[in-house]
Amino acid sequence: MKNTFREIPGSICAPLGFKAAAVFCDIKRLGTGKGSEKGRKRDLALIVSDVPAAVAGMFTTNQVCAAPVKVSAKNAKRKFARGIVVNSGNANACTGEQGLKDATSMTEIAARQLGGSPNEFLVCSTGRIGVPMPMTNVKRGIADAAKKLSRSAASARDAADAIMTSDTRRKEIAVEFTMGGVPVRIGGICKGAGMIQPGMAPHATMLGFITADAVISSALLRESLAKAVEQSFNRITVDGDMSTNDTVLILANGLAGNAAIDAQLFQRALNFVTLELAKMIVRDGEGVTRFVTLRVSGGRTPEDAEAVARSVANSTLVKTSWFGGDPNWGRILCAIGYSKAKVTEGKIDVGYGQPGKRKITFAVRHGRPTKVGLQTLGAIVGQPEFDLHIFLNAGRHDCVLYTSDLTEEYVEFNKGDLSDPKSLGG
Amino acid sequence: MKNTFREIPGSICAPLGFKAAAVFCDIKRLGTGKGSEKGRKRDLALIVSDVPAAVAGMFTTNQVCAAPVKVSAKNAKRKFARGIVVNSGNANACTGEQGLKDATSMTEIAARQLGGSPNEFLVCSTGRIGVPMPMTNVKRGIADAAKKLSRSAASARDAADAIMTSDTRRKEIAVEFTMGGVPVRIGGICKGAGMIQPGMAPHATMLGFITADAVISSALLRESLAKAVEQSFNRITVDGDMSTNDTVLILANGLAGNAAIDAQLFQRALNFVTLELAKMIVRDGEGVTRFVTLRVSGGRTPEDAEAVARSVANSTLVKTSWFGGDPNWGRILCAIGYSKAKVTEGKIDVGYGQPGKRKITFAVRHGRPTKVGLQTLGAIVGQPEFDLHIFLNAGRHDCVLYTSDLTEEYVEFNKGDLSDPKSLGG
Repeated sequence: MKNTFREIPGSICAPLGFKAAAVFCDIKRLGTGKGSEKGRKRDLALIVSDVPAAVAGMFTTNQVCAAPVKVSAKNAKRKFARGIVVNSGNANACTGEQGLKDATSMTEIAARQLGGSPNEFLVCSTGRIGVPMPMTNVKRGIADAAKKLSRSAASARDAADAIMTSDTRRKEIAVEFTMGGVPVRIGGICKGAGMIQPGMAPHATMLGFITADAVISSALLRESLAKAVEQSFNRITVDGDMSTNDTVLILANGLAGNAAIDAQLFQRALNFVTLELAKMIVRDGEGVTRFVTLRVSGGRTPEDAEAVARSVANSTLVKTSWFGGDPNWGRILCAIGYSKAKVTEGKIDVGYGQPGKRKITFAVRHGRPTKVGLQTLGAIVGQPEFDLHIFLNAGRHDCVLYTSDLTEEYVEFNKGDLSDPKSLGG
Repeated sequence: MKNTFREIPGSICAPLGFKAAAVFCDIKRLGTGKGSEKGRKRDLALIVSDVPAAVAGMFTTNQVCAAPVKVSAKNAKRKFARGIVVNSGNANACTGEQGLKDATSMTEIAARQLGGSPNEFLVCSTGRIGVPMPMTNVKRGIADAAKKLSRSAASARDAADAIMTSDTRRKEIAVEFTMGGVPVRIGGICKGAGMIQPGMAPHATMLGFITADAVISSALLRESLAKAVEQSFNRITVDGDMSTNDTVLILANGLAGNAAIDAQLFQRALNFVTLELAKMIVRDGEGVTRFVTLRVSGGRTPEDAEAVARSVANSTLVKTSWFGGDPNWGRILCAIGYSKAKVTEGKIDVGYGQPGKRKITFAVRHGRPTKVGLQTLGAIVGQPEFDLHIFLNAGRHDCVLYTSDLTEEYVEFNKGDLSDPKSLGG
């Protein structure tokens, strides 16, 4: 199917009627937040629709979930929302009753500044765990951001910056397409670098915010978001961990004025936006040097195909071998063998390919090594991006995952340092 | 219960009627194996009983399992065995029909050299995957080793050395105790450093060989070994991976002459031997700087307690934080929350303790951080060994795991290097 949409600038501010703003209010340092913003990374953002927008959200399945997740999950069940308040620097997780009060309070402050009722606002937090939210700073931050709201691409970019924690690169995208003769736009930003392991709601300190100006019902929006997340944020894995704060939200305000919705077209565009964002997360994973598209084919059941893919993608031994550019198919076979999937060693083929190319260079056929030399395989695995193909030849079910290597830099980054106030970051 | 056994030297040669020997026959380099053994690590060992011994074995549950595992699993079902042939340097895995022939051939060569029938011998291999066994070298190695068999502690030590791959330390132990008035001995050696994740048959390139001179039936020996492995090798985890070659074997030749067997006493001694060996594996894990005893209590079901323990012990984020001496209880709560166990955040307590001491310093009570400072907690987590206590307060089921941190050295060691012939090691 041909892409009938094109990329445009402006990310979350590209769709009609959306404004964004971001400020520094010193959430992380628990200081006064006074003084110049110069050189300070923004840590609070607003994303607001001019008119009430259909809303849908997907949230972490972690049983230990943060206060803002609870508040937003409740408010995302409503038909309409006005906007999103998001901060980095403090996850408002493991903060008990006070945390819930603070998260609710953030929606109240937003409503006071921007109009509408508190439960028309969603709230997201990422950062340190177990530390009370510095509400004085937050309150000032929301008020400051409200004054700065703008539909400029620069505002969208500032918001994308504000949600970053260990991310090294801003993640944003927007597309435009025509539906029933009128142009429609979908934009998105996201963050997330460590703790990336999806599975339903993405399991990561993963935040994704998507805006659209399509006319679409809340019911269809929900269905579309679930499908989009399933093929994007739920298909990435960096370290197999998952966080307490993962959230993906979408607001669709209808200002494009399309008379009818082409559900398939909308889905295709939303799939593209979410998949591109998800891939950006893997590429920016902590210490990542390889981006691997893992294609498992021929599983007996969908669950088997996924079990094999996750077993391989989360094997520390496989991931460290990729770091070394080592086509260590023995470790891959091991990981296939200990997955919960039913497999037959003598049927398994393993091959490597280059992104976008159809040629597969096989390392293993029927469970046995081929005559292809390690140097030939290593030339592929040594690339920054490659495809790994696993054929189970046991059925007709497939699974694709986007994953990465595991590097010394990842360990260095995550090993913790008691002198670093980020130490308890989530 | 008081330990009624004492440690003695000699490991696998401590029990009456057992001999061992080890040689270098150049299995890894596929060279001629000729020339001096000086400075070369031994790579083939024999462990032999003077008389037929009751036998029991436990094997990897990995569906991709090596040829020697298949042969030994078959032969371990017999009532008696004579001995064990084991090599390092080549895992004889992913080697197809030829691999099976070679593994069988190793039992045949052993039988020719030592007497008995081939199916009275067990065979184990660890090392490179997907490479044919250099049978000329192996044959010569078995013949040479057969000539060197001895009951000396030095022979046992040589065998413990010969099975090492990435291990940095030899692992051996023996105990003696009195049963029905006569002294009885159990000895053991093991190897395994990376790819350690247990769960039934230990999931690792983990090899364990245990000898005993007790009079004991094959049926009881099997039951005892299963129980012992369950509380030892199945309770350790280094990297969550599991190998194609894991094997634990026990031979009991009855030469102690105990008139009756005290099953409980035998079990207690065997539990001690296997647990000590298992702990040695964790302590010698690749790049390990922390040994953590993880005690999960109060699970709703045994499965819940184990799910929480494995989720925490295998979290790369938790393991890297331990490396930094960082009591990052936020990551621990995360890992508890995404486990398959049913947990209630507000009921969870997390605390740290020093090995052998009862005092627990709590970091989290009822899902919320305590007032104990990070420096206090860090002083415990910075030690080479500490206990991590997780109280789910949801039931009465417990689980103990022995685990380690994840370090840059682990990544460095495993990242693979195409110029290294060990590159495809299993």
